[in-house]
Amino acid sequence: MIIGVLGPEGSYSEKAAQTWILKHRLDSVGIQYFSDIEDAFLAVVQGKSDISIVPIENSIEGSVGVTLDLLLENGVEIVGEIVVKIEHCLLSKGGPEKIKVILSHPQGLAQCRHFLKKYFPEAELRSTGSTSHAARLAGEFEEMAAIASPEAAECYRLKVLLPNIQDRKENYTRFIALRAAGKSPAEQVLCVPDGETGKPENSSHSAFKTSIIVYLEKDRPGALYEILGAFAKNKINLTRIESRPSKKELGDYYFYIDFEGHTGDVLIEETLKDIKSKTDTLKIVGSYPAFKA
Amino acid sequence: MIIGVLGPEGSYSEKAAQTWILKHRLDSVGIQYFSDIEDAFLAVVQGKSDISIVPIENSIEGSVGVTLDLLLENGVEIVGEIVVKIEHCLLSKGGPEKIKVILSHPQGLAQCRHFLKKYFPEAELRSTGSTSHAARLAGEFEEMAAIASPEAAECYRLKVLLPNIQDRKENYTRFIALRAAGKSPAEQVLCVPDGETGKPENSSHSAFKTSIIVYLEKDRPGALYEILGAFAKNKINLTRIESRPSKKELGDYYFYIDFEGHTGDVLIEETLKDIKSKTDTLKIVGSYPAFKA
Repeated sequence: MIIGVLGPEGSYSEKAAQTWILKHRLDSVGIQYFSDIEDAFLAVVQGKSDISIVPIENSIEGSVGVTLDLLLENGVEIVGEIVVKIEHCLLSKGGPEKIKVILSHPQGLAQCRHFLKKYFPEAELRSTGSTSHAARLAGEFEEMAAIASPEAAECYRLKVLLPNIQDRKENYTRFIALRAAGKSPAEQVLCVPDGETGKPENSSHSAFKTSIIVYLEKDRPGALYEILGAFAKNKINLTRIESRPSKKELGDYYFYIDFEGHTGDVLIEETLKDIKSKTDTLKIVGSYPAFKA
Repeated sequence: MIIGVLGPEGSYSEKAAQTWILKHRLDSVGIQYFSDIEDAFLAVVQGKSDISIVPIENSIEGSVGVTLDLLLENGVEIVGEIVVKIEHCLLSKGGPEKIKVILSHPQGLAQCRHFLKKYFPEAELRSTGSTSHAARLAGEFEEMAAIASPEAAECYRLKVLLPNIQDRKENYTRFIALRAAGKSPAEQVLCVPDGETGKPENSSHSAFKTSIIVYLEKDRPGALYEILGAFAKNKINLTRIESRPSKKELGDYYFYIDFEGHTGDVLIEETLKDIKSKTDTLKIVGSYPAFKA
């Protein structure tokens, strides 16, 4: 079994994959590293990985836009979620006085925005494909520092100049585990799946989460209220609602909704049928066990 | 009168400011440039500008997170919105064969993600504070190219190697014009203003927009539905709803809601009172004329 993640070695995505492997007590698993989130995501569609694990939201910086877009565009199914505590460190080969350039993934730079502005107002900031990629580069030049994990420091033999530099101490990233959808993307849109992901009998609602994407036309301003009404009527708890531009025009959005429950439950099935009657586009991205630390 | 924008010269923010100046037929206006969005935003709070104009959302890449966060944290009022067509170009001093590094604002890099991956998979990507800052830097070294506007090319004497390189041809950014709030932030939260922004009499609902921020506790999953119900009951059109992490814990959000109408309208005033009764935190960020191209 191959799990695809954002690489190189020492990334937070790798940590998420290790958590997932432990939880599922998997052995003989290989981790395959990809150079950006898109490649790691698409690996599962292209058959280069059996499972891909990618970040979807961070508690400081919010959604990972590229993951949301790819979820809509590709035939994948979410089979799990993993929450990883993020502890960004400032890493370098030399001392802090030599730092001229600070490297990290754009999310890493954004999560440490206040820190960077206060302590390194003159430093040049460079985006890399991942935090561990930043660490690998910082291992080559003394004037470069990276924002990355303590694990990345170890991997690339860097000093931890400062630990926990993100703007809020509490910093978590939620990752999703994906597999290729059994059905083609065209079929997956507009159809309610039959709960084939193996829902255990008699489980409580909150043990599972389901993720869907709905498109609400700009000209139907009450549509979101109607959709939420379908959940409220059946007392289904929403855990997340996020909008993402349709990219057709400004003011036109897709809504990404996560809620408690499994598509195999009769109540959820009925709710999804109700929603389907209210929107032209409903994509069910999967039902999966809610993460418990 | 001083208008604060993200600089240096040649930024899309400057273009937004010029559109605003033309619309309002202002003269004797000075444009003051700031090195990042946060500084441009805070200028109006710190009295360094009378109006600040900052980006809030893009039709490809979505919300500008830092602007949303600052709107919540500071005592400001939105007094207008401006939509600017974005036409990113690849700019450099030399020819395309010399390019090793590509610079832009993170939003510029994200909006051209597919282009960069296809044509410059080996190039190093660097974040700058603005697209025009990227253009200024690219004017110094032949191996650097910038993603920025045609105006920036002119400003920094760069060649336009390729025009319109963003991943979707239609690319728009919405900017907001801000002034310091008359009331202190503490007062502004939890209170309904009295429509002092000069709402013309007999204007139609859709001529104005109002922006609010509400905090909905994680443990009250039906709260968003109730809030949207207050709008639906009074047939008020929502133009945007966006969530942003509260930064307290994963799964805890503020909702940013834009809708048609002015706080000076009786119907809007009643709706806001209704919403106030359903949430502990309601911040009214302003009523302003909806942008017409």
